[in-house]
Amino acid sequence: LKKKMLIKEIGEFKLIERIKKQLAKGYNLPKSYKPIVVGIGDDAAVVETEPDKLLVATTDILIEDIHFDLKTTSPYDLGWKLLAVNLSDIAAMGATPRYGLVVLGLPVNTSVETVDNLIHGALDLAKKFKVFLIGGDTVTSPDKLVVNLVLWGTVPRDRVLKRSGAKVKDKIMVTGTIGDSSAGLEILQTLKAHTKTSWARKLINKHLLPYPRLQEAGLMARRKLVHGMIDSSDGLSISLKFICQASRVGAKIWADKIPLSRELRCYADFAGRAAYSYALYGGEDYELIFTVPADKEEKIKRLLQKFSDTRITTIGEIVPAQKGLTLVDNNGKITELKTGGYEHFSPS
Amino acid sequence: LKKKMLIKEIGEFKLIERIKKQLAKGYNLPKSYKPIVVGIGDDAAVVETEPDKLLVATTDILIEDIHFDLKTTSPYDLGWKLLAVNLSDIAAMGATPRYGLVVLGLPVNTSVETVDNLIHGALDLAKKFKVFLIGGDTVTSPDKLVVNLVLWGTVPRDRVLKRSGAKVKDKIMVTGTIGDSSAGLEILQTLKAHTKTSWARKLINKHLLPYPRLQEAGLMARRKLVHGMIDSSDGLSISLKFICQASRVGAKIWADKIPLSRELRCYADFAGRAAYSYALYGGEDYELIFTVPADKEEKIKRLLQKFSDTRITTIGEIVPAQKGLTLVDNNGKITELKTGGYEHFSPS
Repeated sequence: LKKKMLIKEIGEFKLIERIKKQLAKGYNLPKSYKPIVVGIGDDAAVVETEPDKLLVATTDILIEDIHFDLKTTSPYDLGWKLLAVNLSDIAAMGATPRYGLVVLGLPVNTSVETVDNLIHGALDLAKKFKVFLIGGDTVTSPDKLVVNLVLWGTVPRDRVLKRSGAKVKDKIMVTGTIGDSSAGLEILQTLKAHTKTSWARKLINKHLLPYPRLQEAGLMARRKLVHGMIDSSDGLSISLKFICQASRVGAKIWADKIPLSRELRCYADFAGRAAYSYALYGGEDYELIFTVPADKEEKIKRLLQKFSDTRITTIGEIVPAQKGLTLVDNNGKITELKTGGYEHFSPS
Repeated sequence: LKKKMLIKEIGEFKLIERIKKQLAKGYNLPKSYKPIVVGIGDDAAVVETEPDKLLVATTDILIEDIHFDLKTTSPYDLGWKLLAVNLSDIAAMGATPRYGLVVLGLPVNTSVETVDNLIHGALDLAKKFKVFLIGGDTVTSPDKLVVNLVLWGTVPRDRVLKRSGAKVKDKIMVTGTIGDSSAGLEILQTLKAHTKTSWARKLINKHLLPYPRLQEAGLMARRKLVHGMIDSSDGLSISLKFICQASRVGAKIWADKIPLSRELRCYADFAGRAAYSYALYGGEDYELIFTVPADKEEKIKRLLQKFSDTRITTIGEIVPAQKGLTLVDNNGKITELKTGGYEHFSPS
């Protein structure tokens, strides 16, 4: 068995050179690609700006044993997810992603192969959306793996999609299905490998390899059909609360309209929980939640049907602020929607 | 004694609101400050771009027990340094800093006061350079405090200062004095409080509260007097190696020309080490190292003298690549300059 090479055997600067070469090969750009004026290997990266467009910037950090467990997450998947969660934020603003910086905090016994695979995962997703990783920072971490990504994109001023744009009587819509990711995480944390059926695998994949809704958000932003938008990283109920707070409105959600996958229903039966509770209170689906004027509902459905395979579903409507955030259950009973979801260092 | 409030008692979202208010109060901007289209509290931050300027982006992460020790670094100092190290990278590109994102990985028992003070330190330095902190990410960390800052700025295309610009016969110059920071760190790590004399305090301050050379770099970039530039974050010898590699040149340094502070000389005597070894092999001074055409040497000295208090010193000259990187000692003896310095997970 060949011993794996460790990062402490090659040191920071050789590791950076290695990443630089891996990215250059992956992108296969001409040696001087004009929009990137200075890439990896200087004090900072330098790129051209796009006149008349706004700049959109986001950053999401993932820390071992908080956001991921290396026993259940491969380095490739981690790299993919690191980029995916940031792409989702750029998507939710209606913007186009452009450039990223990668920050790696690595325990000294990390293998070079781990770093290669992590970059590989991020690069594979980056290439799908023409995002260039052009710099970052590489440091030692005492014990936990820490990865952070910074992402920049651009958006014309009249296409910015904020959380604060929702208006009373808007329909509330979502992409894809909700709740799969948190069910997938639960499976990873509780079930043994031999119990991982095909539905379990699908839920796990949604957790490990989320696919950001850039194409869908881009379509809607270009047509100016959307009032308010957020990504569902913190779960449906908290995301709705954020939209309502920012827009100073309320919302009414029909529990039986929330799009749940067949796989989630299977697992929820197995786990003995209501399937929609995964959607309401679980996070990390990275779907889009958005509000549209009632008379645009059909138009937007047709648009998405025409240009993408992604299902979109109306789950409720925006109401005046004083009506609060409510859930209509399967029997028509209206209750206040508890806004749990994932919150860091949350008071219980 | 009043018990300190912990972040786990208020949770992530209230903490973000708190930071948002602290920053708003600190900057005292009008409620709608036009260049910031979307600030803290959406999926991503959105700002105006500056047409005809390039975008410069950098990120530096600091991890507890690798980059800082909370027994010797206050949260205020940590916040200051977090911004300072990133500002130094922007300075070394000849650029003007504009916006930052702050990433905090916090152990659940972190006090709210610690976060307040950390933001306070970053904000105090940010205000000096008109940098706006407009977003970020706040998460739990299992045990170590992790802080990351993302900074971007702008620069006209013809003012970008790269590492690769050095030319044979250029003079090599540096700002300030070199080696103070690593001596300061050594004092923090080894000496008891009662031995901390005034010279010790000054060296420690240089380590804890570095002041980025933005004004100086800006002056030189605007006059187009500089060929190649880098900041001295990794120590003089490694920084010189980077310039030489990027520019495909060599360099010859005179040991007795390296600007050393009176305080460093005092400490080096006390520690029984050659003072200039702190400059060559110690890092984190965040001074500028740059090369200028020989006939501009005096002009640049006069310029800096006129507009700033910062001393600049010629320490050597650029030579052809085949002559390598050499050090001329006090007796005129020429030896190869060993390029040690701080390298993460360095092979020994």
